[in-house]
Amino acid sequence: MRALYWDGHELSLQSSYPAPIQEAKIVGATGGRPASADKQSALIKVHLAGVCSTDLQIFKGYMDFRGVPGHEFVGSVSEGPENLRGQRVVAEINFGCGECEHCARGLARHCANRKVMGILGADGAFAEKVSIPIANLHLVPSNLSDEEAVFTEPLAAAFEILEQVQVDPGNEILVLGDGKLGNLCAQVLKLTGANVTALGKHRDKLKLIEQSGVRTMLLNDWKPKLYDMVVEATGSESGLKLAISAVRPRGTLILKSTIAGEHHLSLAPLVIHEVTVIGSRCGLFAPALEALQEKRVSVTPLIEKVYPLAEGIEAVAHAAKQGSRKILLRP
Amino acid sequence: MRALYWDGHELSLQSSYPAPIQEAKIVGATGGRPASADKQSALIKVHLAGVCSTDLQIFKGYMDFRGVPGHEFVGSVSEGPENLRGQRVVAEINFGCGECEHCARGLARHCANRKVMGILGADGAFAEKVSIPIANLHLVPSNLSDEEAVFTEPLAAAFEILEQVQVDPGNEILVLGDGKLGNLCAQVLKLTGANVTALGKHRDKLKLIEQSGVRTMLLNDWKPKLYDMVVEATGSESGLKLAISAVRPRGTLILKSTIAGEHHLSLAPLVIHEVTVIGSRCGLFAPALEALQEKRVSVTPLIEKVYPLAEGIEAVAHAAKQGSRKILLRP
Repeated sequence: MRALYWDGHELSLQSSYPAPIQEAKIVGATGGRPASADKQSALIKVHLAGVCSTDLQIFKGYMDFRGVPGHEFVGSVSEGPENLRGQRVVAEINFGCGECEHCARGLARHCANRKVMGILGADGAFAEKVSIPIANLHLVPSNLSDEEAVFTEPLAAAFEILEQVQVDPGNEILVLGDGKLGNLCAQVLKLTGANVTALGKHRDKLKLIEQSGVRTMLLNDWKPKLYDMVVEATGSESGLKLAISAVRPRGTLILKSTIAGEHHLSLAPLVIHEVTVIGSRCGLFAPALEALQEKRVSVTPLIEKVYPLAEGIEAVAHAAKQGSRKILLRP
Repeated sequence: MRALYWDGHELSLQSSYPAPIQEAKIVGATGGRPASADKQSALIKVHLAGVCSTDLQIFKGYMDFRGVPGHEFVGSVSEGPENLRGQRVVAEINFGCGECEHCARGLARHCANRKVMGILGADGAFAEKVSIPIANLHLVPSNLSDEEAVFTEPLAAAFEILEQVQVDPGNEILVLGDGKLGNLCAQVLKLTGANVTALGKHRDKLKLIEQSGVRTMLLNDWKPKLYDMVVEATGSESGLKLAISAVRPRGTLILKSTIAGEHHLSLAPLVIHEVTVIGSRCGLFAPALEALQEKRVSVTPLIEKVYPLAEGIEAVAHAAKQGSRKILLRP
């Protein structure tokens, strides 16, 4: 099958992945085993896959990944249990061992032996087909388009905040960053009745966020103010510093984006103001799918362009451009 | 009166502080106003004062303080309301404005206009007398010695953790640091029924902590392990890095000590493991006094030496020595 392949140095379009084992030179995330469905897995025909900032980080060396990238997708089951065959699905990206304490508590996201599709030890969705544990699949409601359903994973990451923290109506919340993650976080937090302000650098992206009733402010117009909660979704060190300065005493700072490498900053204000900092990563799919189904959030305006998989290299280059919205691949 | 005075460069023993206004060259934290009791304040005769790591940080420039340092003390009321006169007292160190939202919620500790005795805009207790708002005073139970009561402030800082976080019996907790703060935090956390391990560099200090039934481990014997909660009480960057590495996914990291200057470290693990980081500073005095009164914690073994105030300069130098326990001043 056709797939994009990251060898640690270069992204390439493979016309026949994985290579037959006898002549395998490529040993990717699945160790060159053909992606096919076993008892616990289903083989999914990918309809659409999204390029995420984490993918771009991977191409800078993050997680030292080798294999097929891609963890945002929607597809349909081509091989697997009969009741699933042909069904449209999305999938939680962490493949837990199923046996540890975390898996038992529904936290495969934190299983020490987990694989993560397209990120850690498992091939991802920048391919015609992808193999996924059945336990990770979620059926896509029929009133959702593929273009909506492909946002389930990043939207679930935004909903993760609500799983971790109590947000009350009237809370003053600042979302730092007007990118895709900032947009989704702002929309999700707005659902709680909180007063949400999104702060960013791009007038056009802030306009998109405004459509959801979120207040917005250009970074140039920023005047220091204290918020009950600040969500850091810029992925930049300057964003993190601004975030720390904008949390009220005893307030909450949500770290929603990782920064590769070391930070250089003072954590003393966190102690002095007794701030609670909460690292927040992947979320459960159910609330995200429900919100999409009930049209409580709006995701398709975030799409910049859909590329065929054959133009995947250009698509990734486009996604890496400063200020681009969501780039999708259609195998 | 006699007092230690920090002018921003040097600590000196003043025999007549504050200087009479007409010839004032020294303008300290109280702006050279004589320390005396007004309607809202009481003048306290200091019995004992403790030298704290924060004092040592101040002598390195922390908070840009000028005036009489010292915020850990026990004394008796010499001027003030009749019902208080002669009574033995300790005092919460944050002097709130009494009018803002934080003060209204009992959080003068976070009042934006607060003064902090010996740290920010108010003279402290390294003196024969100190002026304190009456609202900040707590009577010392009669069964407590001065040597016990002088630990109320640092013990309250340890109890602050329990005000901020739910600790359950059986939780696995690691306290990093075998100094005074680490010792008190370990003792307080042990009261909850949690399994507490203290990790430190000093065999003798760990021995002290062991007397409270806390397990201890030498840093040299450290083997990576994950804990439900980690308390960072070393005040060092290496301590913070170890702390981050020792928190289980979705676990809690308590930042109990501030580090002056910038950190150089990666915060990505906090996001990946969805760790909750809680900055923790000053605490309420009531639970600390109660624990001292009921002999649930043991503090006097922490005392290294009591100096007369006249030898305050030597006392501070002694406190700054690596590995020294609590140094007290007796005016």
